[in-house]
Amino acid sequence: MVSKSQIKLITSLQQKKYRDKTGLFVAEGPKVIAELREAGLNLHSLFSTEAVSGSSETFFSVTELELQKISFLKTANTSLALFEIPKQIAMPQQGLVLALDAVRDPGNLGTIIRLCDWFGVTQLVCSVDTADCYNPKVIQATMGSIARIQVSYCDLESYIKNSKIPVYGACMEGVNVYAHTWAANGILVMGNEANGISEGISKLLHEKITIAQFGKKQEAESLNVATATAILLSEFRRSTER
Amino acid sequence: MVSKSQIKLITSLQQKKYRDKTGLFVAEGPKVIAELREAGLNLHSLFSTEAVSGSSETFFSVTELELQKISFLKTANTSLALFEIPKQIAMPQQGLVLALDAVRDPGNLGTIIRLCDWFGVTQLVCSVDTADCYNPKVIQATMGSIARIQVSYCDLESYIKNSKIPVYGACMEGVNVYAHTWAANGILVMGNEANGISEGISKLLHEKITIAQFGKKQEAESLNVATATAILLSEFRRSTER
Repeated sequence: MVSKSQIKLITSLQQKKYRDKTGLFVAEGPKVIAELREAGLNLHSLFSTEAVSGSSETFFSVTELELQKISFLKTANTSLALFEIPKQIAMPQQGLVLALDAVRDPGNLGTIIRLCDWFGVTQLVCSVDTADCYNPKVIQATMGSIARIQVSYCDLESYIKNSKIPVYGACMEGVNVYAHTWAANGILVMGNEANGISEGISKLLHEKITIAQFGKKQEAESLNVATATAILLSEFRRSTER
Repeated sequence: MVSKSQIKLITSLQQKKYRDKTGLFVAEGPKVIAELREAGLNLHSLFSTEAVSGSSETFFSVTELELQKISFLKTANTSLALFEIPKQIAMPQQGLVLALDAVRDPGNLGTIIRLCDWFGVTQLVCSVDTADCYNPKVIQATMGSIARIQVSYCDLESYIKNSKIPVYGACMEGVNVYAHTWAANGILVMGNEANGISEGISKLLHEKITIAQFGKKQEAESLNVATATAILLSEFRRSTER
């Protein structure tokens, strides 16, 4: 059974302001939910069409119809859970820190979080105008990787100003990434889908890095921010781990 | 003005069977349309809310409302065009040929075409069960890159059997890509989003290539096929062009 107030709560969590207000976010599907629980996130409530056991204050058996009503997916999975948004903790700057400057598309953010997980980059720092990582679309796109990546939101310009490690930025005109020497500790900034890295942050970069283009006519406009991130994280690992 | 029969024709082109039947596909937005025309594709008809000049059999001035009616986008751009699907021409096997084995998602295919354009990989060979590159979602996702890439559909297994150059495949268990030596001419196979490379094609591979995983717990499930393609094309260029 899902009560009216539960439906109202869950539906409201599509919007960031209600996620901020309640400190909760939605995850769907047994795999994503299991990964978040394994990672130690606090489960608030779980709605499932399959048999569930546990405290009746947390676990709710629902029909498929009820689940479809609260699901954000076109076709609901077998379960939907609410989790508490983890508290932001102090951020050590070790290894590579990935920083996003106004990456707006939830799909891109989700893909980037999954990439961070693959390449063992555990710290992702986002400007406040980057997409919210607890947006349902991001949660689903990360395929559970969100559980293992520490995502922080802050004034990115101040964060970079106060950092004591090299700051790299992905730009259209910079050093060829294949010739670039990475420090073991550093910050890599990826910019907005349409406008790239903002002017204020661009000034703070120690080095601009470019992914060389090989198309004969050099007409390809730019790489998508998620695919560019894939290439740069791969390059960081290739050149620092061997 | 858009006639009823034009509306019917354009709407039908969302489906592959009507694209096959008519030999036409839809592209939207002045930038994409301009790139396709520059690349020499035959324009069948153009509908625009802006002033257009030219033959009255090809160019049609429309209102915003009319354009929204024929557009496949949530918010229509200023123009929509029908182009003739280019004839498939014989495929030389030079440089790197990218082969897709049942990549189903139009967004992934679009991103991969854009990546091919960036990295100067001009030949993309797809199994017949790969998403159709003239699907409107693919056309929009390529950002015009489709104009510069030669996409062919064929029985991928026969194609690979008859090829005389090395065939590489992206797999979960293979040679670390950073240690892999690429031939100047070769075929790189990327597999289906859920199942990877099919069994039949897997047997034909000369070498399996893996993108090393660095996450501590090795729990990240896999990379998205588009981000994996980004990393492998970058690696091919890095190691063969220097």
